[in-house]
Amino acid sequence: MRKLDPEKHEARRQQILRAATACFARRGFHQTRTAEICVEAGMSPGNLFHYFDSKEAIIEALVEEERHEAAQIFEQLRQADDLLQALLDLVDVAFDALADRSEARLAVEIGAEAMRNPRIAVMFERSDAETKAALIGVLTTAVARGQIDPTLDLPSTAGWLIALFDGMISRAAIDPTFDAAAQAPMLRLLIARFLRPQPAARP
Amino acid sequence: MRKLDPEKHEARRQQILRAATACFARRGFHQTRTAEICVEAGMSPGNLFHYFDSKEAIIEALVEEERHEAAQIFEQLRQADDLLQALLDLVDVAFDALADRSEARLAVEIGAEAMRNPRIAVMFERSDAETKAALIGVLTTAVARGQIDPTLDLPSTAGWLIALFDGMISRAAIDPTFDAAAQAPMLRLLIARFLRPQPAARP
Repeated sequence: MRKLDPEKHEARRQQILRAATACFARRGFHQTRTAEICVEAGMSPGNLFHYFDSKEAIIEALVEEERHEAAQIFEQLRQADDLLQALLDLVDVAFDALADRSEARLAVEIGAEAMRNPRIAVMFERSDAETKAALIGVLTTAVARGQIDPTLDLPSTAGWLIALFDGMISRAAIDPTFDAAAQAPMLRLLIARFLRPQPAARP
Repeated sequence: MRKLDPEKHEARRQQILRAATACFARRGFHQTRTAEICVEAGMSPGNLFHYFDSKEAIIEALVEEERHEAAQIFEQLRQADDLLQALLDLVDVAFDALADRSEARLAVEIGAEAMRNPRIAVMFERSDAETKAALIGVLTTAVARGQIDPTLDLPSTAGWLIALFDGMISRAAIDPTFDAAAQAPMLRLLIARFLRPQPAARP
C-alpha cells in the first residue's frame, strides 16, 4: 500500500476544495458534476474519490473549514482588551474575505443547500450555533468590562450581528454594484451606534 | 377560440405561482420538475403552459410580484409624517411576511439563481435597484425633515438596511431557531440607534 505524505495529502485536499469552490460558485451545487471539479483541480476522478467520496463530502469539508476559521477568529477576538473595537475591526477582516466573490457565492450556495439537504443542514446548524455562542460570550465579557451597552438582549443582539454578516455576504455574492471598501465605514458606524454604552438620556 | 375571463385567468396564475413557491422552497429551483408544480397546483401540464412557458417564466413572475409589493410598501411609506417611525414599523411588516417560511426560502432560492442565470439576474438587479432608489428617496426626505441623522451617507445607509433585510430573510429561511417575533425589538433598536439624529457630543 502507498504510504501517504501528510503534507502532500493536505495540499491535494486543498486543491480539490479550491476547485470545488470555484465550480460551485460558478454553476451551483446541483449543476456541478464531479467531473468538472476534477478538470478544475487537474486530477483524475479516481484520484479525487481517494479524498472525497461524494459532492456532499466536499461541501461538508468546506463547511468544516469555515467552522474552523470562525473558531480561530473568535480565539483571536477574545485576546483583545477593547472588545467593541475588536468587533469593529472584524468588519475589515470580513471585507477582506469577501474580496474573493467566489467565497461569498459559495456561502450563499451552502445556505441554500442547507435548506433542503439534512446532512448539510446538521453541519451548518452546528457551525452556526457555535458562532452564535462564541459571539454571545464575547458580548457578555464586553458588558462586564463596560465596553458595550448592558441593557442589550445579548442572544438577540448576536443574532442580528450574524444576520447583518449574512446580508453582507449575500450582497457581495449577488449585487454587482456592491463595493465592500466603500461600504465599510457605514457598517462600522451602524455596529458602534448599536452596541456602545448609551448616554443615560437616550436608553 | 376560448374567451378568457380576466379574473379567472388571474386566479389561475396565482394558483400556479403559489404552487411553484411551495415546490421551489421545498426542493430548490433546479430540482423541481414542472410536473411537480402541476401536481401541487392541481392542473395539467397543458393548462400550466398556457400561463407560463417555462420554469424561468414562473420565477420571473415571482420576482415581478415581489417588485410590485415593494413598490406598494414604499408608496405607503412615503405618506407617513414620521419616516423613521414608519421605517421601524416596516420591521413588523417584514416579520409578518416571513411568518410563511416558504416565502423566505423562495427569496434565498431566487438570490442563488440570480448568481448564475443572466435572465433572472437582470430582473433581480432591476428590482433591487428600484428598492434602493426608493429607500434613498425616503431617507433623503427624512433628513430634510430632521427625522434622521443628516451626517449619514445615504446610499451606503440604504445598502446596509437592505443587507440587514437580506440577512433577516436568510435567517428566517435557514435557521430553525430563528423566532421573528422575539427578535423584532432588538432590530427596531438597532435601526433606531443607527438612523436617529445623534446628540452633538457623539457624532
